[in-house]
Amino acid sequence: MTERHGVDMKAYESVDTPALLLDLDQVERNIRTLQSAATLTGMKLRPHAKAHKCPHLGRLQMAAGAVGLCCSKLGEAEVMAAGGIADILITTPVIGALKIARLVALARKATISVVVDDEQNIAELALAARTAGVTLRAFVEVDVGQGRCGVPPGPRAAELAHQVVRSDALTFAGLQGYHGAIQQAIGFTERKAAVLAAMARLETSLKDFRRAGLEVPVITGGGTGTFPIDVELGLLTELQPGSYVTMDANYDRVQWRAEPGPTPLGCPLSILASVVSRPSRQRAILDVGWKSASSDGGLPQVKDRPELRFEFAGDEHGALTIATGELDLLCGDRIELIASHCDTTVNLYDSFVIHREGRPQGSWPIAARGKSQ
Amino acid sequence: MTERHGVDMKAYESVDTPALLLDLDQVERNIRTLQSAATLTGMKLRPHAKAHKCPHLGRLQMAAGAVGLCCSKLGEAEVMAAGGIADILITTPVIGALKIARLVALARKATISVVVDDEQNIAELALAARTAGVTLRAFVEVDVGQGRCGVPPGPRAAELAHQVVRSDALTFAGLQGYHGAIQQAIGFTERKAAVLAAMARLETSLKDFRRAGLEVPVITGGGTGTFPIDVELGLLTELQPGSYVTMDANYDRVQWRAEPGPTPLGCPLSILASVVSRPSRQRAILDVGWKSASSDGGLPQVKDRPELRFEFAGDEHGALTIATGELDLLCGDRIELIASHCDTTVNLYDSFVIHREGRPQGSWPIAARGKSQ
Repeated sequence: MTERHGVDMKAYESVDTPALLLDLDQVERNIRTLQSAATLTGMKLRPHAKAHKCPHLGRLQMAAGAVGLCCSKLGEAEVMAAGGIADILITTPVIGALKIARLVALARKATISVVVDDEQNIAELALAARTAGVTLRAFVEVDVGQGRCGVPPGPRAAELAHQVVRSDALTFAGLQGYHGAIQQAIGFTERKAAVLAAMARLETSLKDFRRAGLEVPVITGGGTGTFPIDVELGLLTELQPGSYVTMDANYDRVQWRAEPGPTPLGCPLSILASVVSRPSRQRAILDVGWKSASSDGGLPQVKDRPELRFEFAGDEHGALTIATGELDLLCGDRIELIASHCDTTVNLYDSFVIHREGRPQGSWPIAARGKSQ
Repeated sequence: MTERHGVDMKAYESVDTPALLLDLDQVERNIRTLQSAATLTGMKLRPHAKAHKCPHLGRLQMAAGAVGLCCSKLGEAEVMAAGGIADILITTPVIGALKIARLVALARKATISVVVDDEQNIAELALAARTAGVTLRAFVEVDVGQGRCGVPPGPRAAELAHQVVRSDALTFAGLQGYHGAIQQAIGFTERKAAVLAAMARLETSLKDFRRAGLEVPVITGGGTGTFPIDVELGLLTELQPGSYVTMDANYDRVQWRAEPGPTPLGCPLSILASVVSRPSRQRAILDVGWKSASSDGGLPQVKDRPELRFEFAGDEHGALTIATGELDLLCGDRIELIASHCDTTVNLYDSFVIHREGRPQGSWPIAARGKSQ
């Protein structure tokens, strides 16, 4: 087992399974790669913490040069602020009295930016911020083609920005234009065409804003799959990739450049699983199922053993099969899987088991796990 | 909104979203229904806690007459024992030195049963139990057709039982024969045929065991989808359904009897979601995505509003659409979804918001959430 997997399974005997392993050396390389790509092209990097939900990783990103972090949810932002992150953009609208009360409380502890696409929400944010004596930075979200949040390019976006500008408790921070669905378009040409279409919509909005006399300090967007294209285009001023830190099997299939070449990002994240039953010579049952590996992105892959196939076999079971020959695994043997989708897999665990050169170095809490509110 | 949804949304203003709501009146009705079905046919009920992961619910099941609980994982069993459950069957093999050490420690606090299908594992369990001075009850698992854990009917099953009997620290408790994959076969006829095939395999094993001079105290298996058939067949002596307490959209589609009739189990579980963006007249964006509703069982359904369709739109977003007309929802409005798969959805939350007659009654911790080890 030891040689075949490339990690020393002996060293993991003290680690129970299922466990989420994270290779810190590779994490650091990924952080440097994205930070360099942004810095070299004059862009700022604001990594998305929704992918890792771990303040330790957020602090590593800040130390490498990030200007702040993004969070999807207010609950994640609260955890990151408590973990020492001083500048946070919440990339999904913060709606309703309960959340806005928490938001203005958080704005006393850190610089907080929100995204807006609704007049009533802006009015509520402005009132709450003024009452609490805090300032919130607000980005107007432009729908660049995903059909999710944001307003389409057109006069309404600029009207929302003017509403923000009129409020003394809100600062107009700029535009957000993010397209999640194109991040994993596998072919480079297809992905680049999709990015160009999205950025054209954002550019249209930008012109509207300038015509309306609005200065746009920051244009934020982009993700792990599009970063090589985003830095080349140069329209965005802040990038918000998240998955690049941990990576997963789906991002690992993305074609990063027009020409074949080495993948710029390695995959430090893996799921350590144990064999719990051996029903036949070609089949082993693992202790990993839907509750310890997400399925929304497809099937996890078996690390370093392309001849083996993993399939889900229930909430807490997976089946490992080999097409030809016999599986060389006994009950209790360990094997590593690569998550199909890092974000939703990380959200199933309470901590990462950190390792360097195949040796466990302790665990880092995934402190914002489950913080969907 | 109030009339249309059948719950008083005003009453939920203090509940933030996404939240997992649980109607306690309906929970109690479901618990009574299954307990009565078991008791009336002379069977014992040992509900599966993997579905709810909540000691409060486990105690309700015990108070209604259950003989103990099932858990999938040792970590769940530790939480249930700490919550006062005195008799627990762990329905998945407990493999490896780390877990076996925890298992024998747990056996000091509660009556613990395990399932076995491997000689080496039985030897390790026997040694650890003897060394710790505890007794473990062991069920031999028979593969009744799922191809997951367990040994096929045949001499090896009885050999494993003899190995258990020879150990003074293990007690042979009986047979487990569970077929998870047939629980949600929607048509009654198809499901019944599958149950008959599975039970025929178990009966074959039972005859082997009796021929080998082994008394089989307990035969455990069955689930929510097969309980009407299991109680009719009468081969099992203990039933281990789990999902019946909370139910979900997939179980709600199951045809329970040969003839059309009322569903014996209601669905007390729902996901409370908020509208966070209104990109068009036919479309609303909700704050529920893959991180707050599982997708392995398909799409969540919109409660009481069959004209609306929910689709996932990312980790933290869902899109609600209406085929014709205009959606009557504003930013901040709430709507309830029915989970497609209760087990994996419950595992995403830290607590249930308990309600009776549409009024929140506090929250119950999902204390075994994420306990996959």
